[in-house]
Amino acid sequence: MKYILRITCSDQKGLIYKISNVLFEEGFNVERNDEFVDAEKNHFFMRTEFSGDCKVEELKNKLQNILPEDAKLELSLKKVKNVVILVTKEHHCLSDLLIRNEFNEMNFNVLSVIGNYELLKDLTQKFNVPFHYVPAENISREEHQQKIAEILENYDFDYIVLAKFMRILTPEFVKKFKHKIINIHHSFLPAFIGANPYKQAHERGVKMIGATSHFVTDDLDEGPIIYQDIIKVNHSQNAKDLAKLGKEVEKKVLAEALKLVFNDKVFIDENKTVIFE
Amino acid sequence: MKYILRITCSDQKGLIYKISNVLFEEGFNVERNDEFVDAEKNHFFMRTEFSGDCKVEELKNKLQNILPEDAKLELSLKKVKNVVILVTKEHHCLSDLLIRNEFNEMNFNVLSVIGNYELLKDLTQKFNVPFHYVPAENISREEHQQKIAEILENYDFDYIVLAKFMRILTPEFVKKFKHKIINIHHSFLPAFIGANPYKQAHERGVKMIGATSHFVTDDLDEGPIIYQDIIKVNHSQNAKDLAKLGKEVEKKVLAEALKLVFNDKVFIDENKTVIFE
Amino acid sequence: MKYILRITCSDQKGLIYKISNVLFEEGFNVERNDEFVDAEKNHFFMRTEFSGDCKVEELKNKLQNILPEDAKLELSLKKVKNVVILVTKEHHCLSDLLIRNEFNEMNFNVLSVIGNYELLKDLTQKFNVPFHYVPAENISREEHQQKIAEILENYDFDYIVLAKFMRILTPEFVKKFKHKIINIHHSFLPAFIGANPYKQAHERGVKMIGATSHFVTDDLDEGPIIYQDIIKVNHSQNAKDLAKLGKEVEKKVLAEALKLVFNDKVFIDENKTVIFE
Amino acid sequence: MKYILRITCSDQKGLIYKISNVLFEEGFNVERNDEFVDAEKNHFFMRTEFSGDCKVEELKNKLQNILPEDAKLELSLKKVKNVVILVTKEHHCLSDLLIRNEFNEMNFNVLSVIGNYELLKDLTQKFNVPFHYVPAENISREEHQQKIAEILENYDFDYIVLAKFMRILTPEFVKKFKHKIINIHHSFLPAFIGANPYKQAHERGVKMIGATSHFVTDDLDEGPIIYQDIIKVNHSQNAKDLAKLGKEVEKKVLAEALKLVFNDKVFIDENKTVIFE
Repeated sequence: MKYILRITCSDQKGLIYKISNVLFEEGFNVERNDEFVDAEKNHFFMRTEFSGDCKVEELKNKLQNILPEDAKLELSLKKVKNVVILVTKEHHCLSDLLIRNEFNEMNFNVLSVIGNYELLKDLTQKFNVPFHYVPAENISREEHQQKIAEILENYDFDYIVLAKFMRILTPEFVKKFKHKIINIHHSFLPAFIGANPYKQAHERGVKMIGATSHFVTDDLDEGPIIYQDIIKVNHSQNAKDLAKLGKEVEKKVLAEALKLVFNDKVFIDENKTVIFE
Repeated sequence: MKYILRITCSDQKGLIYKISNVLFEEGFNVERNDEFVDAEKNHFFMRTEFSGDCKVEELKNKLQNILPEDAKLELSLKKVKNVVILVTKEHHCLSDLLIRNEFNEMNFNVLSVIGNYELLKDLTQKFNVPFHYVPAENISREEHQQKIAEILENYDFDYIVLAKFMRILTPEFVKKFKHKIINIHHSFLPAFIGANPYKQAHERGVKMIGATSHFVTDDLDEGPIIYQDIIKVNHSQNAKDLAKLGKEVEKKVLAEALKLVFNDKVFIDENKTVIFE
Repeated sequence: MKYILRITCSDQKGLIYKISNVLFEEGFNVERNDEFVDAEKNHFFMRTEFSGDCKVEELKNKLQNILPEDAKLELSLKKVKNVVILVTKEHHCLSDLLIRNEFNEMNFNVLSVIGNYELLKDLTQKFNVPFHYVPAENISREEHQQKIAEILENYDFDYIVLAKFMRILTPEFVKKFKHKIINIHHSFLPAFIGANPYKQAHERGVKMIGATSHFVTDDLDEGPIIYQDIIKVNHSQNAKDLAKLGKEVEKKVLAEALKLVFNDKVFIDENKTVIFE
Repeated sequence: MKYILRITCSDQKGLIYKISNVLFEEGFNVERNDEFVDAEKNHFFMRTEFSGDCKVEELKNKLQNILPEDAKLELSLKKVKNVVILVTKEHHCLSDLLIRNEFNEMNFNVLSVIGNYELLKDLTQKFNVPFHYVPAENISREEHQQKIAEILENYDFDYIVLAKFMRILTPEFVKKFKHKIINIHHSFLPAFIGANPYKQAHERGVKMIGATSHFVTDDLDEGPIIYQDIIKVNHSQNAKDLAKLGKEVEKKVLAEALKLVFNDKVFIDENKTVIFE
């Protein structure tokens, strides 16, 4: 049986020794181990893959005893993540994820897709994934997201993926699903502010465009960044071309970010991430 | 003899035909030809490399006659560009350019270096390039740049390269050397505003940093972009590490931009560039 | 109406003038024009996008008259390319193409998929594309490909895409569909020779892996290269991980190559390509 | 005082615990820790940065006692590496290294440069680095390299860098300086075999060229790879252009490889490297 142990706590001398001591005495086989100390914030991060015969609660207690009081400890079998995807009209990220789900290529399982338009229903159902249509018209943002939250209650999910969900989340929604929502943003950050970033990029005459995947927090587009990438562009491409190219990079960046998160390689360090690639 | 012809004008039907007609009748051998029409602005751009025995003024007249009134026409022997470099304290871009100059590797010739500190004098003089020390202390920005302008008058230069010249240029200076000043900016654009962008990048937890080379206009950091690139970074790098990595990308981006400009491949199209790579 | 004119011929003085003269006299509006001369081989390449009211055969004749005898001339309405895809077992390139086909995102139309296994039948049919199962067992390579050729006769296709078709084509098949077959190769070139390149790459300890898309000619993996790209890897990735990453780069490289070909931007210049991006 | 501890040995259960136990009991402060197990070869690699007051020989003994018999152990103060550079005619890698040396930008100190031509003497001496001219004419390869080896005896160096040293090393030379020689190879690997790889790349019509930095072993160009990168090229670039672009990527790849090695981040794992970036 393979387990993943993830520890975050304030740093102090001997942490690695103490933790590896517990694992050694239990007779586990450590297969991969990563640590990082954020010296500025005095935060310690450790991720260990080990195999053996583990009583999870017992081991957690033993570790809790030797760790600082503020320690956050995750310990579980290496497992496939359950995911609900939220979409609006654009298919490119959803398509990519549905294909990866169909062929079990990314350590995840798509439980359902929720859309505020019906446009992507057919695509979703082709792959035998339930699609929930939750129109946003004529109701408030709060009511709309309340409806989505109610649907989410039916699913035992680990993460919510915003695969081009083009609506701003309410603070209630964000709070309710803290550290569980991952977004793809159509720009590197800092970014052109406001609507139609590809039009702005074109008007500014930039020579590259990018995308950013991040956890969602209350600050719009300001959550911890997981992955970013760019694509080079030139003068001959108009705003529409840039938007099209942008979709390619958005799709790729979201997939790369999710691979990292779904393999438990990403830690949240306040407004940043620590990633053991 | 190899010539480069560069034409910018409002677009109209038959321009390529009319221009190539003139070149054909003169018996020139066209070796490379690039055109672009900015359809949004109705601007036509054409760059032609040809060989033959050319009377420059005569050919210019012939072309002027068949082109729209607003045509801007550059025609000259393919030539090495004369350059003055402005620096402050950081050596990384200057070093790279001095080496390329020493070995004649980039179609340019460094006439001199002007610095507001003496720090880079030794380095410059190693390569037998004159260094002018123009301190900025105790004088106004205008006076300082007036002194630099006076030194520039002694040189027959094509371009001024700001190789990490960390002072804001006055509108007078920019106006005087319109479309002749090339800068390297320590970020992609849009960028973190204000001082110490690498510190801001670190605090924001970005996963890549970049640099932008652009022509200088009155709007600070808003001139036409020539070249941009990025480098990936991660959580383990602190602000100082980012600054160090940033220098690598700055050096590279400036060199790539200058190669394009010095080979007459870059046209300015209002606040953007058209580049025939 | 938008037309694309593509000309290949031996180079001689005045070609651009002569061609643009014809287009001007017909009153066409040239929207984009690219030329290249392969000086080593004395080959001239020209691609022109123009709009207007064009009698195709008449214009072809006029152009043929002013061009060198060896000129090859293609002139047609800008059009969507019809494509048949050949596959074996791996889905990653096919999935990507089926999605792009479904949403009309790449200038092509998938007429059908032919596979030597039935594995990808369901996937293909989800998108209402016919799937032909042509098993290769117990018959010779020639017979097998003869069967495929017979199916192909039912389709009016422009290109055959080998989307991980893992069988070597017979010289007859290649000859029959000369310059119409595009392959994705699991390596940059030159490459590890023989089976299981990702295992070889792992054993050699390379720090990047790549893929190459090329036209198929008689020389196995030696046809004109259209597009190549790489992805960085490290010591922690085993041969299986490399194969997985390789699929990502294969998928991307094939899509980029097809975009170029389907937009008529790729010329074949003996064993190389000339591409007007 | 900052120390770097590097351990390579056959893998067994509890290694991390045992090692961290020793470091904890000595009261050291572990600042960074990286481990990797090559499961195929059962090799364990560990690199630890720690600070404290360390008696090096004593600590080595303590660690040796708890490690498997085959353990190789390096322990030393974090230090600047001493380097001798071997060159032939091309300056691009040497220039880059001399500049980085001059400004103390890469954790190294260039003790001297040895060349089989005098061409790069002036450049080297500009930076007050001794240059040894060892002509290869009219003597055997063995004699030539014997002369170089004699000069090397005068220097207390950690690494020999072949910065475009275009001569094949004798088995004696390689054996004498095992794991201490780093080369930059003008291609990714596998590569075009034989002379003039950029000409071959051009003739093959590749769309990218690359470079590889590796440790030198008896197998020519077959030592453990440290770093590789590529640059995209197109049809308009001739063999000479490719060679010029190749120099840019060679220079960059060598610098990146040396940064990794000089910061003790590279382990040799038979014919591969393990790198803790």
